[in-house]
Amino acid sequence: MESENKNSGYGGMESGVVVANKRKLRGSDVILRFLALALSLAAAVVLGVNNETTTVAMTLVPTLPPVNVPVTAKWHYLSAFVFFVVSNSIACAYAAVSLIVKLANRSGKKGMEMMFILVDLIMVALLFASVGAALAIGLMGYEGNSHVQWKKVCHVFDRYCDQAGVAIGLSCGASLAYFVLVVLAVLKRC
Amino acid sequence: MESENKNSGYGGMESGVVVANKRKLRGSDVILRFLALALSLAAAVVLGVNNETTTVAMTLVPTLPPVNVPVTAKWHYLSAFVFFVVSNSIACAYAAVSLIVKLANRSGKKGMEMMFILVDLIMVALLFASVGAALAIGLMGYEGNSHVQWKKVCHVFDRYCDQAGVAIGLSCGASLAYFVLVVLAVLKRC
Repeated sequence: MESENKNSGYGGMESGVVVANKRKLRGSDVILRFLALALSLAAAVVLGVNNETTTVAMTLVPTLPPVNVPVTAKWHYLSAFVFFVVSNSIACAYAAVSLIVKLANRSGKKGMEMMFILVDLIMVALLFASVGAALAIGLMGYEGNSHVQWKKVCHVFDRYCDQAGVAIGLSCGASLAYFVLVVLAVLKRC
Repeated sequence: MESENKNSGYGGMESGVVVANKRKLRGSDVILRFLALALSLAAAVVLGVNNETTTVAMTLVPTLPPVNVPVTAKWHYLSAFVFFVVSNSIACAYAAVSLIVKLANRSGKKGMEMMFILVDLIMVALLFASVGAALAIGLMGYEGNSHVQWKKVCHVFDRYCDQAGVAIGLSCGASLAYFVLVVLAVLKRC
């Protein structure tokens, strides 16, 4: 009787809605993983290839006039940016692997689903930490700080700083994609 | 028949195990919230009350000998530390509220449980971002960076830097407590 109810009348309608909801959640899961892949890849590339060389006037000897010295900004000069590029590369690689596994394995075994939720959550932590670190150093570059006598550098490396800002924005998008993935996984289990 | 099975034989054993597991998870949930409360409160207080005044020799006029100038380090001089203290205060306040609600409302309604998981996840993102930001600025203070000409300051403010390091460590603990809370909530639903 119980199994009949599930497949007919209200029971049938209910199971139809559940299946439709699960399909929607599955579709959203794939779209979000693709978004996370694209955004984290773009963030890592935009900051990774970012470099700018410019000349600044420096007084080397107080009695002589200032000399124009070439200076270069690269992502691996700052440890926060190294952490940012590495984190986004890891998030990108995991998004690619999880997308392939999700598309190939449609059954969705319980153990595998749990592992995906756990690694998605690790990606949330990793990406938010890297965005926080890059933003803190980026803001210091834009504004400087008189208390610790760290001068702003973004008026010299303006293109470099703009590009770093774009990379941070892209990584924010990837972090939010992973965040929504965890929320959807929890909703799926309710 | 079905209801009888649930309360006797294997059914009874199974439901007994489920109840015991739910109690264990509930106990872990309360302990983790208490840990998150204590650690985030300690992190906010340790960095919030942290200040150090010392004297440094500064050359104000090139022709005159250096003068000893008093300099002070406070948490609100750096925006990353302000973000850190505010984030940990929010995480601490939420841990206190959620702990009271969890202890008062033992039924655990589905909607409320969902809201808790969502806010726990927001706390994971917020705390990891603030730890990343504070760590990036803290490391810069310890090591400096010759490329952007930001000199290290921790050899001057050594006690302040040590205390900031302790605060970051405590906040890492609070972040992990919220992380495990989300993992447990997902496990509970499997």
